[in-house]
Amino acid sequence: MIARFDAGASGDRGSGAIGALLNPRSIAIVGASDRSRWSQALVANLTRGGYTGALHLVNRRGGIVHGRAAATACTDIGAELDAAIVLVPAVAVPDAIDDIARAGATAALVLTSGFAETGAAGAAVQATMVARAAAAGVRLLGPNSLGFINFTGRVHAWTTPVRAPSRSRGTAIVSQSGATAYFMAELAWQQDIALSCVVATGNEADLDASAFLDHLVDDPDTRAIALFIETVRAPARFLAAARRALAAGKPVVALKVGASEATARAAVAHTGALVGDDAVFDGICRQFGMIRVHSIEALLATADIAGRTGVLGDGGLAIISNSGGVCEIAADSAARQGVRVPALDAAVAAHLAEAMPGFSTPHNPLDLTGGVDPDRLDDIVRRMAGQRDIAAVLCVLYPVPTAVDEESERADAVHRQVSAALSGIGVPGLLTSYTHTRVNDHARAIIERIGAPYCACGVDRAIAALAGVFWWSRMHRDLARAAPADVRADVAAPGSARPAGGERAALDYLASHGVPVVPSVLAADAAAAIAAARAFGGPVVLKIASPDIAHKSDIGGVALDVSGDDAVGHAFLRVVEAARARVPGAVIEGVLVAPMRERGVELIVGMARDPQWGPVLAVGLGGIWVEVLKDAALRVLPVDIAEVRRMLAELRGAPLLAGARGVPPANLEALAAAIARIAHAAACLGPQVAALDVNPLWVRGDRVEALDALLVGAPAAPAEKG
Amino acid sequence: MIARFDAGASGDRGSGAIGALLNPRSIAIVGASDRSRWSQALVANLTRGGYTGALHLVNRRGGIVHGRAAATACTDIGAELDAAIVLVPAVAVPDAIDDIARAGATAALVLTSGFAETGAAGAAVQATMVARAAAAGVRLLGPNSLGFINFTGRVHAWTTPVRAPSRSRGTAIVSQSGATAYFMAELAWQQDIALSCVVATGNEADLDASAFLDHLVDDPDTRAIALFIETVRAPARFLAAARRALAAGKPVVALKVGASEATARAAVAHTGALVGDDAVFDGICRQFGMIRVHSIEALLATADIAGRTGVLGDGGLAIISNSGGVCEIAADSAARQGVRVPALDAAVAAHLAEAMPGFSTPHNPLDLTGGVDPDRLDDIVRRMAGQRDIAAVLCVLYPVPTAVDEESERADAVHRQVSAALSGIGVPGLLTSYTHTRVNDHARAIIERIGAPYCACGVDRAIAALAGVFWWSRMHRDLARAAPADVRADVAAPGSARPAGGERAALDYLASHGVPVVPSVLAADAAAAIAAARAFGGPVVLKIASPDIAHKSDIGGVALDVSGDDAVGHAFLRVVEAARARVPGAVIEGVLVAPMRERGVELIVGMARDPQWGPVLAVGLGGIWVEVLKDAALRVLPVDIAEVRRMLAELRGAPLLAGARGVPPANLEALAAAIARIAHAAACLGPQVAALDVNPLWVRGDRVEALDALLVGAPAAPAEKG
Repeated sequence: MIARFDAGASGDRGSGAIGALLNPRSIAIVGASDRSRWSQALVANLTRGGYTGALHLVNRRGGIVHGRAAATACTDIGAELDAAIVLVPAVAVPDAIDDIARAGATAALVLTSGFAETGAAGAAVQATMVARAAAAGVRLLGPNSLGFINFTGRVHAWTTPVRAPSRSRGTAIVSQSGATAYFMAELAWQQDIALSCVVATGNEADLDASAFLDHLVDDPDTRAIALFIETVRAPARFLAAARRALAAGKPVVALKVGASEATARAAVAHTGALVGDDAVFDGICRQFGMIRVHSIEALLATADIAGRTGVLGDGGLAIISNSGGVCEIAADSAARQGVRVPALDAAVAAHLAEAMPGFSTPHNPLDLTGGVDPDRLDDIVRRMAGQRDIAAVLCVLYPVPTAVDEESERADAVHRQVSAALSGIGVPGLLTSYTHTRVNDHARAIIERIGAPYCACGVDRAIAALAGVFWWSRMHRDLARAAPADVRADVAAPGSARPAGGERAALDYLASHGVPVVPSVLAADAAAAIAAARAFGGPVVLKIASPDIAHKSDIGGVALDVSGDDAVGHAFLRVVEAARARVPGAVIEGVLVAPMRERGVELIVGMARDPQWGPVLAVGLGGIWVEVLKDAALRVLPVDIAEVRRMLAELRGAPLLAGARGVPPANLEALAAAIARIAHAAACLGPQVAALDVNPLWVRGDRVEALDALLVGAPAAPAEKG
Repeated sequence: MIARFDAGASGDRGSGAIGALLNPRSIAIVGASDRSRWSQALVANLTRGGYTGALHLVNRRGGIVHGRAAATACTDIGAELDAAIVLVPAVAVPDAIDDIARAGATAALVLTSGFAETGAAGAAVQATMVARAAAAGVRLLGPNSLGFINFTGRVHAWTTPVRAPSRSRGTAIVSQSGATAYFMAELAWQQDIALSCVVATGNEADLDASAFLDHLVDDPDTRAIALFIETVRAPARFLAAARRALAAGKPVVALKVGASEATARAAVAHTGALVGDDAVFDGICRQFGMIRVHSIEALLATADIAGRTGVLGDGGLAIISNSGGVCEIAADSAARQGVRVPALDAAVAAHLAEAMPGFSTPHNPLDLTGGVDPDRLDDIVRRMAGQRDIAAVLCVLYPVPTAVDEESERADAVHRQVSAALSGIGVPGLLTSYTHTRVNDHARAIIERIGAPYCACGVDRAIAALAGVFWWSRMHRDLARAAPADVRADVAAPGSARPAGGERAALDYLASHGVPVVPSVLAADAAAAIAAARAFGGPVVLKIASPDIAHKSDIGGVALDVSGDDAVGHAFLRVVEAARARVPGAVIEGVLVAPMRERGVELIVGMARDPQWGPVLAVGLGGIWVEVLKDAALRVLPVDIAEVRRMLAELRGAPLLAGARGVPPANLEALAAAIARIAHAAACLGPQVAALDVNPLWVRGDRVEALDALLVGAPAAPAEKG
């Protein structure tokens, strides 16, 4: 089935329960025990973190735990319960869930491990737990989770030491690896990055990363969402949440692992081989406006910076530093990452030249030189920010001191002036250091005092992050501009007619969905072929027509560029003979005769069914582009024409479509429309069809035609979960 | 002129004086003054740094400076002087140099600014200073330098606060930006990276980055050299030093800026447009085995790690972590960076499965899981390291604690066990943290106590660095294996015959250098063309022969794939007519008739003269590969066959050479030999020739032929400095 991602289709699954879980008025720790390190850590974290609700301890033996009276069951607490944290052994969890439900809780965090991650026996216990929870109306986070931390609401339900950030309006971390979430939180602490919450989703027996992503789109304290994911369990919900986030202008940054372990799948159809998990996820990130990164450092810095700036306007970056070397590094980095650094307006340049007497012509990046007068900085920053075509300002200056002996009057003056200036310009402004550095209590006090928009990630990481934010901002604007109608409005609803195998059937199916298809005649004998060729009136192509022969060229079943009655007649016989000889017993329906198309650009457009993501569309240029360079753009279906335009634009071979070597430029709108129709036709095919290849889709100027097509049947993909 | 880079041609320029400068037994600070912040900082740094030689202060007024008696001139000191540090105003520097020379010093560091960097007047003073220094036999570092720091020899001749690393057998920093050098040293201090020295080369009026690079190749305390460069003033000495470093197994890591400012040059010949400064520098790094990086963080981490590991053997990387998420991040990162992570041998896997009971099948990367018994680590690390095909081991574990409250018995045990194991394996082993972190005094004490090979750069940066080190190690081994003879031994020495313009002359010139060239006949009339075509015995190509027509196809001066007397005769007339009509007055020598070559792979091989680097060879696949994808490999001349093989291998289109679409695989040895001969022929052309294009060089199986060639004349490039 097609993954649906209309905003309306999602949104509320688990959100109410997630709210109760992350912001409970009362919590019970079920399985609290003085002997449990986790139990100790939990109580210590919740207490030190300033949890203001009621915290109850439950131990089946009762008694005194962590210095206070423990109840023997949730139902014995004698107070309404919002949520529970479960520490009891795996086999005891299902009963614990019932107890929790009876006490009125609607959500539980299960920290216990020993479930599906350990094998079949554990998976069985997990299934029992999930069933009991569903029956009891309790939503679950976990099992095998390290917990969650709601920094805004002061609920530190976490099992290792927690260091709270100085600000909690910022990045939310959702991670399928608890340890990785912890490493991120530690790095955030070292760099004074604001965190709203951290969620380790563990085995995701019930609530998964998609559910938390969806919940956080609406969380006012979460300004950006950082995802660490190994697998997406519910693609439809994941994509719906991602689309909601993009529409809401809430940046999602994703670190997805597993690329190197992706095993090449058997490639029945041509495009099948292109569809690896990782390539599909890359395409999905492009399609749904998620910023993809590849390291923990990049994940955190990008989410932090995206959250600080929000959606950027349609302009470039102004860079200001007091080091010439860093200006050069920054300029190169921006060029490499595709961040535009607009030249200075003449008027701005003239003004700056006056403001910085004795220095050379001002440029962007602006080299203040080490000798700049701090009192001039306010004016300089405002002038740079104020020029047309600037959407953000990045100042690269001294790191904020982490000790008294690192302080200087000059650095302090520079920091104060720049921070004040950045807060008063009309575009987002950031202050960063020459390299990544750290923020301790000393530095934190300075940052707070002067209100510095300080990113300790350093200039290189900051520019890489800003590259992502500029791209994401364009995606957000594109989405806002997109017409609500999609390509499906253009074509008739699919009938129940399921195309049989064979080229002609595939092309007819495409034609029925509005795809322009090359005309052809099925000739039963040489005379018919000759008549057809005459009717077309130019060189023709002859191709064997047989539902049993998929790869016609391989068996000599194709004759190209044939002219004249004799040649057509001979070609007919040759093609039929080759088919008979090479595929004995194949049903031969005849020979397709079609006009030979003159030189244009040939594309491959294919749909393959990804076991996880469903039907995936691949678009590439024919020949070596796909075969050697793997130069294809991938998207999950459905796609609209604007999306196809973006796919075409991201091909490395895209310049070929602009016309070259005597071929007129392709009409990109017509081409994109044809591809969108192919995509829709593919989407209408049921799971019995594994792949649809149009190879080639020919374009020359305004003319677009599918010249050949192939349908590949396959067993149905496993039904999607979620 | 061709940049020469034989090891013998370099090596000693400035090294004696550099030794005296970096390791002086006595120093005079000329222009020492209580009022000068730099003077204060210098004396403080030299004193606190533990300088053990004699430190003299010179002030033209004498008196007491910084609490001690100052001489009025170097000649008044009354003791032999090794080196001087000059702080006097620019105009006074030439006289100061004379004074310094008279006192016996052979080297001076000139910190003063206001020279060439300020314009023509300053440049004139600089020229005077250089001339006086040359006459007096004094070598100069600077002017406009922030100084140098010799950490090994305890000479902190630096003008901003210095924090000495805990170990000084390590990376040398050579930087054309003083501020950038300082940022690197600060980051090194934060990450406890060993530094041997820091040199800020300033204006490079005399001693330049190449001179220090060359000197440091032989410095036993320097294990790796980190270069920050904006421009290379003496390409020949730079390349000679780089080659010496590669041969010596001393890694050079380069951060070169200015890529985004490279202006596209007028492209007379086809390959001219490919030769931008930055692309050439990329090619040079590949050719001379320098690891190129793009950020300060990468520069430092890569130099540090390369210096720690030295040349790696011919194998892959074993990765060990206690976080599954990090194992996945590391595996993906290794795959993306091209670091091989070999699968475990069955025996090793079986042993590890026993050593880590209860966990899933061991893989590389090895997930120890959080619960691993530290006492097992020694055995686990040794087993991983000991398997065939492993050249280095990277352990990704807890960061080393920076405070008591971060310590734990478990982390300490893990660190101790792993550090001990890594010191006893036969391959280099490193310990890093999940993300970049920092090292303070607390952590430094732990690292020293347990002898941890700790890199605080984090796993992502460490794997990127190791990717560079693996590549550099292969380059080092290739250089060691290279035969001493180069392609020049194969061909006759170039005569004085300078080829005239025109295709035939260019092809003849190439043929005289042993390049296989397509046969052709210059036909004066249609009959001669027909006779030639008959003699070749197959389809032919006809091309107008005129020294005045460079781009024959553009004016209709080429007829391809012509067969039969009539067709040949008509083609002759058509081609001549087109030339007469489109280029009136062109001298027409006739029409070249050559056999049409059947389908193979076409390459473009070109030499273009780079104003800085001299003749640069470009090799790419013809058609879209060069035109659209800019897929070309660049090298400075000369190159040998092995180098050309590497160029071919790095083309994105390289798979096409392995045979595709009915074309047999190219004989890469024959192809590389032909290209090496073209390169040599190009190198033999004087500066009157700006470019030589062979387009196409055709290859099909064992057959290689230059089908067309073009020589482009130009004014001589500026003579190389140095």
